[in-house]
Amino acid sequence: MSQKLDEALSHKSVDEQQLWALRHTTEHVLHQAIKELYPEIQLAMGPATEDGFYCDFDSTPSPEVKVVISEANFPKIEKRMREIINRNLPMIRQEVSVDEARKLFANNPYKLEWVDEIEQRGEKVTIYWTGQPGEKGSMVDLCGGPHADSTGAIKAFKLLSVAGAYWHGDEKNKMLTRIYGTAFNSQEELDAYLAQLEKARQNDHRKLGAELGLFTFSDLVGKGLPLWTPKGATVRRELERFVVDEELARGYLHVNTPDIALLDLYRTSGHYPYYKDTMYAPITIDDEEFMLRPMTCPHHFEIYKSQPRSYKELPMRLAELAQLYRYEKSGELTGLMRVRTFCLADAHIIARKSQAVEEINGVIDLIEYVLKLWGLQPGEDYRFRLSLGNRQDDKKYYKDDAAWDFAENVLRQVLQQRGSMYFEAEDEAAFYGPKIDVQMKNVHGKEETAFTVQYDFVMPKRFQLSYINEEGKEEEPIVVHRSSIGAVERTMAFLIEKFGGAFPLWLAPVQAVVIPISEDQHQYAAEVSTALRQAKIRVENWNEAESMQKRIRRAEKEKVPYMIILGKQEVEDKMLSVRHRGNQDLGLLQLQNFIEKLGQEIEDKAL
Amino acid sequence: MSQKLDEALSHKSVDEQQLWALRHTTEHVLHQAIKELYPEIQLAMGPATEDGFYCDFDSTPSPEVKVVISEANFPKIEKRMREIINRNLPMIRQEVSVDEARKLFANNPYKLEWVDEIEQRGEKVTIYWTGQPGEKGSMVDLCGGPHADSTGAIKAFKLLSVAGAYWHGDEKNKMLTRIYGTAFNSQEELDAYLAQLEKARQNDHRKLGAELGLFTFSDLVGKGLPLWTPKGATVRRELERFVVDEELARGYLHVNTPDIALLDLYRTSGHYPYYKDTMYAPITIDDEEFMLRPMTCPHHFEIYKSQPRSYKELPMRLAELAQLYRYEKSGELTGLMRVRTFCLADAHIIARKSQAVEEINGVIDLIEYVLKLWGLQPGEDYRFRLSLGNRQDDKKYYKDDAAWDFAENVLRQVLQQRGSMYFEAEDEAAFYGPKIDVQMKNVHGKEETAFTVQYDFVMPKRFQLSYINEEGKEEEPIVVHRSSIGAVERTMAFLIEKFGGAFPLWLAPVQAVVIPISEDQHQYAAEVSTALRQAKIRVENWNEAESMQKRIRRAEKEKVPYMIILGKQEVEDKMLSVRHRGNQDLGLLQLQNFIEKLGQEIEDKAL
Repeated sequence: MSQKLDEALSHKSVDEQQLWALRHTTEHVLHQAIKELYPEIQLAMGPATEDGFYCDFDSTPSPEVKVVISEANFPKIEKRMREIINRNLPMIRQEVSVDEARKLFANNPYKLEWVDEIEQRGEKVTIYWTGQPGEKGSMVDLCGGPHADSTGAIKAFKLLSVAGAYWHGDEKNKMLTRIYGTAFNSQEELDAYLAQLEKARQNDHRKLGAELGLFTFSDLVGKGLPLWTPKGATVRRELERFVVDEELARGYLHVNTPDIALLDLYRTSGHYPYYKDTMYAPITIDDEEFMLRPMTCPHHFEIYKSQPRSYKELPMRLAELAQLYRYEKSGELTGLMRVRTFCLADAHIIARKSQAVEEINGVIDLIEYVLKLWGLQPGEDYRFRLSLGNRQDDKKYYKDDAAWDFAENVLRQVLQQRGSMYFEAEDEAAFYGPKIDVQMKNVHGKEETAFTVQYDFVMPKRFQLSYINEEGKEEEPIVVHRSSIGAVERTMAFLIEKFGGAFPLWLAPVQAVVIPISEDQHQYAAEVSTALRQAKIRVENWNEAESMQKRIRRAEKEKVPYMIILGKQEVEDKMLSVRHRGNQDLGLLQLQNFIEKLGQEIEDKAL
Repeated sequence: MSQKLDEALSHKSVDEQQLWALRHTTEHVLHQAIKELYPEIQLAMGPATEDGFYCDFDSTPSPEVKVVISEANFPKIEKRMREIINRNLPMIRQEVSVDEARKLFANNPYKLEWVDEIEQRGEKVTIYWTGQPGEKGSMVDLCGGPHADSTGAIKAFKLLSVAGAYWHGDEKNKMLTRIYGTAFNSQEELDAYLAQLEKARQNDHRKLGAELGLFTFSDLVGKGLPLWTPKGATVRRELERFVVDEELARGYLHVNTPDIALLDLYRTSGHYPYYKDTMYAPITIDDEEFMLRPMTCPHHFEIYKSQPRSYKELPMRLAELAQLYRYEKSGELTGLMRVRTFCLADAHIIARKSQAVEEINGVIDLIEYVLKLWGLQPGEDYRFRLSLGNRQDDKKYYKDDAAWDFAENVLRQVLQQRGSMYFEAEDEAAFYGPKIDVQMKNVHGKEETAFTVQYDFVMPKRFQLSYINEEGKEEEPIVVHRSSIGAVERTMAFLIEKFGGAFPLWLAPVQAVVIPISEDQHQYAAEVSTALRQAKIRVENWNEAESMQKRIRRAEKEKVPYMIILGKQEVEDKMLSVRHRGNQDLGLLQLQNFIEKLGQEIEDKAL
């Protein structure tokens, strides 16, 4: 454990290490506060994490004892923590023998289990004292550190939530209680983090998806299988049509291939041994085994191979909105982020080696165009990672040093020519070649790989892809695997959270609502909504006998971009009184001007 | 067998029965001609069919004998058949004992097997003599008839093709040779039939699909799983977008639901026992069983049930382009017509009983609009069938006489109000209610059910669908199951054959090609194609160094609607020389006029 920790810490900057140690110390303070307040509770373990820390304890250590800890107890616990911080107790490290450790933690089976493990690994036992060793008011824990010098170093902390957690994360073990918290070097940083957390909670796509009626789940249909309700399906359709049209305009050829295929296809592609665990079980039909496909590469290669190809046809950019099926454990399914089947905006560019630079450049053009549409800035919201292979590791990477050198150079050249912000990462490539990863900040500000552009010189060999060159001879093309927007489900989750449900006009499920103040304006309202509908605006006519204010509030709640209020004056002047969501009054507009304004905003895909 | 035949014949008109008998006699003549020409061949069986007849025989009856019959032998066989016809041999029926039959066919194991079967069924053995019984030049066969009086009645016949066929259609049995042929009452009728057959062959969607590069199949992906290549995927996309947009405009709400669901969903819906054999085997994920869905009804009901519904939300027309999976035997897979997974333009209208007439009317409006777009005329190319239940048959039909009466009346009322051409068919309804079937002529002129509009009063009970009425009370809605264009794959097959690959402009994968006569016009060609592309026309620039005539012929072969020929004069005058496929010279047009013309033709979805 300590070796792993050392490794993990060695990747961190000095600031990150300091913060990690501070949070670790805060966790010990939480630990101590609980011990002082609820002596019957048995403490199990608690590390610092990327975001803060948590602490697991057994609140039912024996049949007679049952302590119920909820968020209602947090003020009391936090108060005691502040007292311990104010005592400014030193954090003191000691190395002890296994026997001494067993004596120190004789009453705690969880700690004793750790001691056994440390003994088995032949490692040293280290403990940390909060306060002077053995003195009254001090606390000791089995711990590798590191820690802040004393509890007084903790300037700002907060307990966040409580949850259940199995001992060792194994559902066969006892369920413990876990308290999450965090600590920062200043109250300002903590406040900023809490505000961000609250915003993330408010914008959680699962919460907004239900509130705005975008999608739903059904126990009868099954976990990890979202059902897109009309509004969500509308956003999704706009997104999908946009991707297809944009790709067609950029010279992609969209195809459509089946979601199932013979198991042999994946044996030929060589995917099967690597992907077996993420694929669903085969379905036998007439003595043949079929698989729900986990990827489209082999399907697209079969289309390429359906006839002889000439160099004149290259580059051939085969694209598809492809439904893919990959296994996820029930426990890991999360809203639209982790699902059991997803639709990937996939493509395979089959090209000559000499076309690689231009093609990869084109892919990154498309990706950056899409990211800009989402309001993301290079450098600020995302950067590129050039993921390289390792010439020494023949197991992890296909052996062909010259091909690796060439491909890595192509990718580096593209990033350099573009002046992109990027960094290089050793040993992060795919088996079949290097890749460019788009590293994006998630809603918590953390960097993740959003999608990748992969250079592949192995599949063309496996599938015996070829083309006839200018001299009438067979040559082997290369393949670029890429996605423009990634999986539609994940992108939808991202967009819902990014915009807090207030989609840009072109994506909004309902783009405008017409609100006639009284029945006298119903006729005019019908005319207006008909005209908007004819102009392909998604409009609803809200004729309900409900006060105008109530309907405006409802439109705001549903995040409808435009509200058209029609009263007596509007009818007389043949005008529209227009409000934009977020209380922006746009004043009076002529119908035709309004239609043109919206048309332009939609065409521009304005944010 | 004879009882089944009697039943089948009793459904035929007198004319149909006469033609059937004539074809049956022609089959005996074929039988006799083969026996006379190739005495070593063993004849197995041969019936008349809807279109003609066929005859199966064993051309390798013993290890020493191998007769290879191909279409090259047809002239010789037909010549002998004509001789037998000219002999004007009488067709004479006899009843014989089982023993006599065994003696007559002692050398033919196939006939002996039939005799055994007839004996087991306790039926009479009938035989037919061609010519006087027992005389030289006569032939006898085990046969129930009926037949024409004599071979001279055959005025016009033709052998069509040869194929392999397993004895009893079972692949465990021996492979026999089958000759197909047909006969008519006049040479004119035969010629008309052969012309239709040739057109059907020319327009066969499998042939055109390959020639025009619309779709392909791959042995590695599997049978019955078409891969849509870029051009076919383009037609399909246009078709799908049209359906979705048209349905949205008609008040449908498009949703998107997963292709897999828990087996329990189909148990709840009651579909499982009925559909089990057409569903693929379950896939187990984390101890739960999932199915590839064979229908969307339960998915849409789960969306309906995701929240309480008010009468104000009805009718709710939930629509989806849904990928469905139904089992088909390998041997029955045919191009796009019979596939293992297909995409249905599906919808379920959940409505109050009082809305049923209007909703079904709306569905038929949509269907007739689509059929008109395909160039189909009511009465001529299609008619409606009102498929009714049977109050006596509680097994086949859900028992609720009042509901059946009401629903059948609703459907009848709609068809009568519309003045539709329709007929009523007893005992053709679904389990859960009556339906309107759209009966369409296929490429062979035969009537088939293209798609159906079903009234369902059972599923709402099974799924406990409900809504709150004006009085705040729960009521049960009804459901209308319908499709607008049926399965996309079948519709594509139909459209390819209907238009012989020459799609209407709006569906054409390539709508126009630009053909500069020489390199001097390449610059202008690029301008023209850019302008067309900006106007959303699917255009290709054919700059190849190939003669203009050759490129025009290629465009004709690829059935491209418009060819734009650019020479010296066109560049000088800034004009386009335009040809429409099928050698129509449209003369000189201004670019802007041409764009407008095409835009209008696309918007009108003109034929």
